[in-house]
Amino acid sequence: MAEDKTAVDMVVHGRYVVTMDGTRDVIENGAVAVKDGAIVAVGTDAEIAAAYDARESVSGEGRVLMPGFVNGHTHTAMVLFRGMADDLALMTWLQEYIFPMEGRYVDPAFIEVGSELACWEMIQGGTTSFVDMYFYPEVIAGVVDRCGLRAVIAAPMIDFPSPGFKGWDDSFAAGVKFVEDWQGKHSRITPALAPHAPYTVSKEHLAQVTAKAKELGAPISIHIAEDKAELKTVGDKYGITSIELMQEVGMTDVTTVAAHVVWPTESDMKTLAASKVGAIHNPTSNLKTAAGIAPIPAMLAAGVKVGLGTDGAASNNDLDMWEELRLAALLHKGAGGDPTVVPARAALNMATAGGAEAVGLGDVTGSLEAGKRADMIQVSLDSLRLSPLYDVMSQLVYAAGARDVVTTIVDGKLLMADGKVLTVDEDALRAKVKAVADKIHADLDAKKQ
Amino acid sequence: MAEDKTAVDMVVHGRYVVTMDGTRDVIENGAVAVKDGAIVAVGTDAEIAAAYDARESVSGEGRVLMPGFVNGHTHTAMVLFRGMADDLALMTWLQEYIFPMEGRYVDPAFIEVGSELACWEMIQGGTTSFVDMYFYPEVIAGVVDRCGLRAVIAAPMIDFPSPGFKGWDDSFAAGVKFVEDWQGKHSRITPALAPHAPYTVSKEHLAQVTAKAKELGAPISIHIAEDKAELKTVGDKYGITSIELMQEVGMTDVTTVAAHVVWPTESDMKTLAASKVGAIHNPTSNLKTAAGIAPIPAMLAAGVKVGLGTDGAASNNDLDMWEELRLAALLHKGAGGDPTVVPARAALNMATAGGAEAVGLGDVTGSLEAGKRADMIQVSLDSLRLSPLYDVMSQLVYAAGARDVVTTIVDGKLLMADGKVLTVDEDALRAKVKAVADKIHADLDAKKQ
Repeated sequence: MAEDKTAVDMVVHGRYVVTMDGTRDVIENGAVAVKDGAIVAVGTDAEIAAAYDARESVSGEGRVLMPGFVNGHTHTAMVLFRGMADDLALMTWLQEYIFPMEGRYVDPAFIEVGSELACWEMIQGGTTSFVDMYFYPEVIAGVVDRCGLRAVIAAPMIDFPSPGFKGWDDSFAAGVKFVEDWQGKHSRITPALAPHAPYTVSKEHLAQVTAKAKELGAPISIHIAEDKAELKTVGDKYGITSIELMQEVGMTDVTTVAAHVVWPTESDMKTLAASKVGAIHNPTSNLKTAAGIAPIPAMLAAGVKVGLGTDGAASNNDLDMWEELRLAALLHKGAGGDPTVVPARAALNMATAGGAEAVGLGDVTGSLEAGKRADMIQVSLDSLRLSPLYDVMSQLVYAAGARDVVTTIVDGKLLMADGKVLTVDEDALRAKVKAVADKIHADLDAKKQ
Repeated sequence: MAEDKTAVDMVVHGRYVVTMDGTRDVIENGAVAVKDGAIVAVGTDAEIAAAYDARESVSGEGRVLMPGFVNGHTHTAMVLFRGMADDLALMTWLQEYIFPMEGRYVDPAFIEVGSELACWEMIQGGTTSFVDMYFYPEVIAGVVDRCGLRAVIAAPMIDFPSPGFKGWDDSFAAGVKFVEDWQGKHSRITPALAPHAPYTVSKEHLAQVTAKAKELGAPISIHIAEDKAELKTVGDKYGITSIELMQEVGMTDVTTVAAHVVWPTESDMKTLAASKVGAIHNPTSNLKTAAGIAPIPAMLAAGVKVGLGTDGAASNNDLDMWEELRLAALLHKGAGGDPTVVPARAALNMATAGGAEAVGLGDVTGSLEAGKRADMIQVSLDSLRLSPLYDVMSQLVYAAGARDVVTTIVDGKLLMADGKVLTVDEDALRAKVKAVADKIHADLDAKKQ
């Protein structure tokens, strides 16, 4: 019989396989067959064993096998500012801490260390794809290449001088060059354009960036409808909402990752639902910065593509998608007075298949189904914290966490096995992080005096 | 010089010692000296080394030493229903799942297994004290005795038949007997009376329980002002708020642990601030059951004693105080539109010193200061997730988690060392949990068919 079987590179098993493919919720004692970095089949252990011969096998005993998380919005290297300035008013935070510190420290070496720390953190927490928006995107791309994750890397663009943004005046040309340099060059990296926000980039420039993105076939990433101050600015300036502005400049016709979307109107939601825009819900960040609570149940009901994100660690303070998953499932029940909204499955979907769709990677990742890339994680059910087990999705959303992730696979390659990250040298990284932090510490100490 | 030193049982060190004593925020390279289960001194390593000779020493290298958490409201054995019935309307949840399952399964053996699982979970997550309210309190007390935690154990009382509450009709007498049996008998156990809620216990009975609590010198634990339905019931019946009802029956003059308090009026907050009542904020549970968002900043400003709790695992789904801590710090910023409210220190205080005060254990636990019992934990800073480190309290609240707790000490006794729980046999517990879960599984499967 063996000669009838198809040779594959890897079969990964799961006591429970959560496919998020929209057809089967959970396969008990299941497996995924992987060849050339892609999923070739998903089924029960018996079905997979009958059809495939694997070179490598990953045991699924006591483990859930599921898609890795898609972190739809972050600023990776900001992990180096983790906990530097919390519980402050927005302008104090930006003008006294974030902008000056960015101005003083952000350079390619800083971005390299910060992105590596962020990638390490995401790998160990089960994130397999992310959308980044930060300085020196070409440096971020190099780190992503080495650490093995999948990323949409968006080059930031801004209209006016910001102390943290060296080269702001050249940022549009530099962003376009970054996309041209990386587009189609790397299977795991999608370069993108990131006009920062409607209050930092003019309507005219938003229209230009949108036209360029269309021409290049590149996605856009933007902060939009994040807080009431932005809505007021846009309203005063253009007499419309931020989402209407996106529509006017043509951005709704381009694959756009719209971060935050805390304050869409009913009409905005309809616009988004009919567009190529995905909205990224960042519940921790939105609470921490007091931006507000996005109307996620209404957005889902309207058909908006909704993903989940951590935002940068300066407003989180980590890159843990499990926390976002849990918070997304909890927050809207309490805020809206309905315990049935955003059930476990819907939260999981925002973090996986729905999130992938929201960031334009819906055909590539986010679910376990034949034809997609093999981006997946194993979650150990071993801890007594996860017993008893009545409902796998409930357990994942409301009780499990980053510490339970034991395996992370992207493009069919093991990035973490048995809880050990394989693609980042932890000791070297620790020394590099310490060197950066020591300098910032000295600065903060001087500031206090 | 050594003969000038005082002999103590243990010195526990911390690279950072977070005392929560209200005077010093963080001592770098500090230590706590412990004798006969009590803290005799807190200071720098040098100060403690100069004055004390310790029989046992716990290294603080790379660790924060801080008070253990006070979980102000839980129903321990409900961990056995973890994830059994989520994302449901309140009445479906109660009447189709919780009540029937309690009726079918809750007996002393169930409580013993469930409480042991809960205690294990709390020990490994850094909780050192908790307030429990569940069936068979004498069984819970036995588990607490063995596992080494500190607890206020409140005997539940209810007016009318509930399918889950065998012996409901005798619950008042049984509660009083429990208090009489345990009061003053055990250094770590405080027995208490728990009239369930103002919609399940009549005003007359609330007054009787209050009088009895006064007579016995025992605290009370009650669910109060949890949701709008309760307020309506109490308003319709008595023409007053739930907090006013507490005042009318005299409960505000008794040490009372008031769970939830989601809907206090301005006047209620003043009443609470001037009373012996502590309010326990259960942010996860309040969101998950859609009870609402408690006005914590206003309550703190009014001077209400506020603690933090997990509630039972059926509405959480775990007993992780780190999640409550983080959520408490985040939620009120976003809900109220002010990023400066409930800063890290205030959240930590609710989980430790403030929480201890709220549950009537303010003189006993909750901070590291001479005279209090030695209830403390060490949190490892080793993970790269916790680097860089700019602000210890921010790191604890926004980035650290239960997985970083490596040491748990109660009454000067090690309950967990190097991440290993010492007072619970994990393998035996696992088998016992499985036996209970298997029965419930069969029931749930039958229900689905």
